[in-house]
Amino acid sequence: MNSIGQLFRLTTFGESHGTAIGGIVDGCPAGIYLDVKAIQNELDRRKPGQSSITTARKESDTLQILSGVFEGKTTGAPICFIIPNEDQRSKDYSNLKEVYRPSHADFTYDKKFGFRDYRGGGRSSARETANWVAAGAIAKQLLKSVNIHAFVSSVGEEFVLKPYQKLDFKQIENNLVRCPDKEVANRMIAAIEQAKEEGDSLGGTITCVAQGVPAGWGEPIFDKLHARLGQAILNINAVKGFEYGSGFRGAKMKGSMHNDIFTKGGKTTSNLSGGIQAGISNGMDIYFRVAFKPTATIMKDQTTINQKGEAVQFKAKGRHDPCVVPRAVPVVEAMTAIVLADFYLLNKNSKI
Amino acid sequence: MNSIGQLFRLTTFGESHGTAIGGIVDGCPAGIYLDVKAIQNELDRRKPGQSSITTARKESDTLQILSGVFEGKTTGAPICFIIPNEDQRSKDYSNLKEVYRPSHADFTYDKKFGFRDYRGGGRSSARETANWVAAGAIAKQLLKSVNIHAFVSSVGEEFVLKPYQKLDFKQIENNLVRCPDKEVANRMIAAIEQAKEEGDSLGGTITCVAQGVPAGWGEPIFDKLHARLGQAILNINAVKGFEYGSGFRGAKMKGSMHNDIFTKGGKTTSNLSGGIQAGISNGMDIYFRVAFKPTATIMKDQTTINQKGEAVQFKAKGRHDPCVVPRAVPVVEAMTAIVLADFYLLNKNSKI
Amino acid sequence: MNSIGQLFRLTTFGESHGTAIGGIVDGCPAGIYLDVKAIQNELDRRKPGQSSITTARKESDTLQILSGVFEGKTTGAPICFIIPNEDQRSKDYSNLKEVYRPSHADFTYDKKFGFRDYRGGGRSSARETANWVAAGAIAKQLLKSVNIHAFVSSVGEEFVLKPYQKLDFKQIENNLVRCPDKEVANRMIAAIEQAKEEGDSLGGTITCVAQGVPAGWGEPIFDKLHARLGQAILNINAVKGFEYGSGFRGAKMKGSMHNDIFTKGGKTTSNLSGGIQAGISNGMDIYFRVAFKPTATIMKDQTTINQKGEAVQFKAKGRHDPCVVPRAVPVVEAMTAIVLADFYLLNKNSKI
Amino acid sequence: MNSIGQLFRLTTFGESHGTAIGGIVDGCPAGIYLDVKAIQNELDRRKPGQSSITTARKESDTLQILSGVFEGKTTGAPICFIIPNEDQRSKDYSNLKEVYRPSHADFTYDKKFGFRDYRGGGRSSARETANWVAAGAIAKQLLKSVNIHAFVSSVGEEFVLKPYQKLDFKQIENNLVRCPDKEVANRMIAAIEQAKEEGDSLGGTITCVAQGVPAGWGEPIFDKLHARLGQAILNINAVKGFEYGSGFRGAKMKGSMHNDIFTKGGKTTSNLSGGIQAGISNGMDIYFRVAFKPTATIMKDQTTINQKGEAVQFKAKGRHDPCVVPRAVPVVEAMTAIVLADFYLLNKNSKI
Repeated sequence: MNSIGQLFRLTTFGESHGTAIGGIVDGCPAGIYLDVKAIQNELDRRKPGQSSITTARKESDTLQILSGVFEGKTTGAPICFIIPNEDQRSKDYSNLKEVYRPSHADFTYDKKFGFRDYRGGGRSSARETANWVAAGAIAKQLLKSVNIHAFVSSVGEEFVLKPYQKLDFKQIENNLVRCPDKEVANRMIAAIEQAKEEGDSLGGTITCVAQGVPAGWGEPIFDKLHARLGQAILNINAVKGFEYGSGFRGAKMKGSMHNDIFTKGGKTTSNLSGGIQAGISNGMDIYFRVAFKPTATIMKDQTTINQKGEAVQFKAKGRHDPCVVPRAVPVVEAMTAIVLADFYLLNKNSKI
Repeated sequence: MNSIGQLFRLTTFGESHGTAIGGIVDGCPAGIYLDVKAIQNELDRRKPGQSSITTARKESDTLQILSGVFEGKTTGAPICFIIPNEDQRSKDYSNLKEVYRPSHADFTYDKKFGFRDYRGGGRSSARETANWVAAGAIAKQLLKSVNIHAFVSSVGEEFVLKPYQKLDFKQIENNLVRCPDKEVANRMIAAIEQAKEEGDSLGGTITCVAQGVPAGWGEPIFDKLHARLGQAILNINAVKGFEYGSGFRGAKMKGSMHNDIFTKGGKTTSNLSGGIQAGISNGMDIYFRVAFKPTATIMKDQTTINQKGEAVQFKAKGRHDPCVVPRAVPVVEAMTAIVLADFYLLNKNSKI
Repeated sequence: MNSIGQLFRLTTFGESHGTAIGGIVDGCPAGIYLDVKAIQNELDRRKPGQSSITTARKESDTLQILSGVFEGKTTGAPICFIIPNEDQRSKDYSNLKEVYRPSHADFTYDKKFGFRDYRGGGRSSARETANWVAAGAIAKQLLKSVNIHAFVSSVGEEFVLKPYQKLDFKQIENNLVRCPDKEVANRMIAAIEQAKEEGDSLGGTITCVAQGVPAGWGEPIFDKLHARLGQAILNINAVKGFEYGSGFRGAKMKGSMHNDIFTKGGKTTSNLSGGIQAGISNGMDIYFRVAFKPTATIMKDQTTINQKGEAVQFKAKGRHDPCVVPRAVPVVEAMTAIVLADFYLLNKNSKI
Repeated sequence: MNSIGQLFRLTTFGESHGTAIGGIVDGCPAGIYLDVKAIQNELDRRKPGQSSITTARKESDTLQILSGVFEGKTTGAPICFIIPNEDQRSKDYSNLKEVYRPSHADFTYDKKFGFRDYRGGGRSSARETANWVAAGAIAKQLLKSVNIHAFVSSVGEEFVLKPYQKLDFKQIENNLVRCPDKEVANRMIAAIEQAKEEGDSLGGTITCVAQGVPAGWGEPIFDKLHARLGQAILNINAVKGFEYGSGFRGAKMKGSMHNDIFTKGGKTTSNLSGGIQAGISNGMDIYFRVAFKPTATIMKDQTTINQKGEAVQFKAKGRHDPCVVPRAVPVVEAMTAIVLADFYLLNKNSKI
């Protein structure tokens, strides 16, 4: 289904080349002064055409709020927002009607639904993530004490080697690739530009840190905090992996090295737990890392098949990102905010 | 909440040292001849005390089915099962009443709920996973055409290097550590035994392969197949990461290398997608890899704090696994089966 | 929350005097040729200003579909529709800012949310039911074999005495009050006109009949077919009661008179069960009756209180229905269709 | 599905003649001292064999709590309880294997599920309501400030004529039929005894009053307080109708008579609203009335059909209630408590 969250719930709709995309945020408490400009700012961070290393598609991604806000405040009623589609060159996609692009949604949508809206990826387009960014920006306003910072931690073979604690999050927005380590950022940008020139694409990783989450958020068994974060994040287009705290590196360690030792105030000296123990926040920083595959759309000839199963040659037209991670940074933050907002509300009932 | 699944739904209960643990499977269609012995076999794969490298706790983990089955067949009514607790040495845990063990649930449970059932981890104990194995064994019987094989792919620094396609899944159960590569298995066992001797513990990874899933399972946006698999798997105790298909390795690649090329029948020559494109199965093998941290309970002195925030020395008593991955293999399979069963039912309504 | 249905799910938004109202229908299978004109026809049956006995507010209630339909067919993606608000005389309501109208939502909304959108009732306005009619019209197109007919069975003290089997449903739309018994209809209209002249309002009942539902729809315990119908119907503004089959009359009867006797084909000679036994449809007509209170808004002086708890005199301005039941007929049908569509989809998984 | 409630959620299982019935209460906050005896008292009010006018089936209905309670307090973990089945004369039901009893679940269960557990009604047995009473008794302990009183307000043609405000709820448990008006109670008992003697059965109504619910409980659109109460109540076996406040009587009234006029404190002089305005409690008494059909099982010869569709003669054996309403009183209270507990928790998040 197209909903996420139990109490703070987002339901979305829309196709890349339809009239509009949008969503309904249900369960947002009444009485929040909603800063609409702040929502628009987040959308601007995600929107296409923002720099030389992103797709040239032009969308202003202008948010319209249709309900749920009165005299500047949330009313407790569902907040519906829409983002009209503008720069639709649907003709760019007419050649996709019959073709199954490699590692795209075309084949599986046809198998599942019997046919598909092939214009610009239809429902499977990453354009959907604009909805999440809008809802996430609302969630952030509910989570006053929480700060969420995501940044690009690798592109292809270029990695940030410093631990996040040594990075200045204020630098994230200061370069095209959203990497707070300026030197690495420059290498990442160069790598993306080269891939673009070759008609190729690159994968990468994003690291996200949530600070200020108090101890106690998360539900023990099937709604562990990291499990719900993982689900939300894995839904982002092109994501192939999720790890939190020590992650896959932790699987190589011994317990005597991995355990986080408590200090008197309930803090821990290390934080290999990633701020979560047994599915519940412990008051330390929550952090996780996300793997994105390289964009499936490349400007090279590829052999593939059409609906009849015949082999055909295919070369993408249209406008695409050579590397999705810079624009995915606000998306990762948004999904994190949506999940945390839900657990904030759920936790109100953990004890009498 | 303590439920997982939308149509095939499991709700569980129980604490490590209570009367019994158990669960209710709701939404299982009527008319399945339920092989109870097959369920018990799965429980036996998970149960403690099965070998020299697992905890010595003795539990027969004998399943009782209380409802939902009549004359051998599921009736469409909820299937309740219970697994009585037997070998409860609750006294082993009386020293835990005041202490917050490092990297355990003690601190976060107290913060969330105000107090906790401290006997053997209470609700946070991995004993809960027996419930999942039981429900997963029911799910497997619903998924007749699907085969799910999980195996240990690393322990500490010992890794299986062969791709899963070159492994013989029939060998998985032939050694204590559930690794189909015999040589690597021996090294893993040695590593676990050494950690045990040192009073320490080891992490590891499990790889899981689901074969026979037809194209079309999974729901596009917030219930992508891999996102729901990820959520389910991340809920397993000690899991720190989840990746499917190319995973984190894919984040280093170029699109021209990463795309899976279709052949005429709709199969693909490579399978970096991991059997899932845009959140929907494509008919290829689904596979993923899971990172487990080292067991937090170690037989070494550790400094920690008590409920008052005072520093105390702590050394674990009780009986524990030096490495959880061998016993987690059936748990990973079970969670996979539970998720796939849900998508199988959900997919009945994808088109008219 | 603002959602109804488990598999065929409607989520709505909007206030009476906002930009637009609307909703998202999620879970509608792909491949249905959607007749948009048929949806608009249903909206026209509900819209204000349609006759001399309804409110004079003018709304064209023009449906816009934003997503989920491609080349005339549902795609399996969420269907978002909006209905812009047009004739908003919000100034009519400025006098409501401080006043709590008797038997209205003003007081309870303020208590629950801390404040309210007072323009035209905001979220509590019956304008919301237009969303349900739109979604119900989509549900009807999924339920090809089912026919749903609602009609006004009483207004004040004027009752239809004939059983529904003796009525000609084709006559329902042939008079202003939507009562298929022409003589009774005329008396009803006269009663409404008199109430209107007096500045007063009248209650009434609606009877609804669903024909063509096969045996087997409904879920046994907490989602009994009549329970979910009851919930849906009781959500309609002004509804005070719901009974199906023999209803409250059945409570006076003996079992020997009440039991429906089977005939050879599995039909029953009587149908006091109302087409539902143990929460599951039995293949007979499903029918139920709904009680609506008289409109709370009357054009008479009333004593009431303001937000400070002070006594004030209040007389309604604005435009209102003297009796809601004629316009509620398509709303009752719509909610019935929404519930039945959900059970139709749910029932696909009752047995293997 | 077999669950009810969003935050305070009950999931049940069990068949009349299986090993046990039971349920899981999920979402109950931690820290409630659970009075198990009070739960058992409620079960005793419902249990069979309690008087000369109820079924002679003997069940002690002894509650066992398996989880979720530690040192007398709820832990926030799911509370699983079971009630073993004891007096199963399954042989009484062997004659039901082939027969479809009139107005019973036999026919519809077979149609839905392909076959059924025919022993004592299986899952469709009213024995299931013992689970609800147990969960309701837990809900009552969460709802400290709320008092819920249900009573029998009619049996057949014998009605309580006094308004509930003139009745002494303390008298409810002082007679076999649970009617606080002693004279009417005696006539009711006589009517039931006569029906029993004739091998027949009687319907009746129950009125329920919830006092102490503060203003603000209930969710505006699809989870109106009375709609969710209606759904819960309509799920009770044999219920045919639900009305709250003025109910069906209100449908005959004029607005000028029906509106509840506010007094200075926010109370209303009348309470035709039944304590609920626009789906949200207003702080006045909540009250509603429920119609029960006569028991379908009667000790008379009836013509019916068997599974092959052939006409057969049928006369019930076994032990049954000639009138269900006296034993349904605690069931109505329990369902009311379960719904109110859910809204109590949901309302914690209505505003910041």
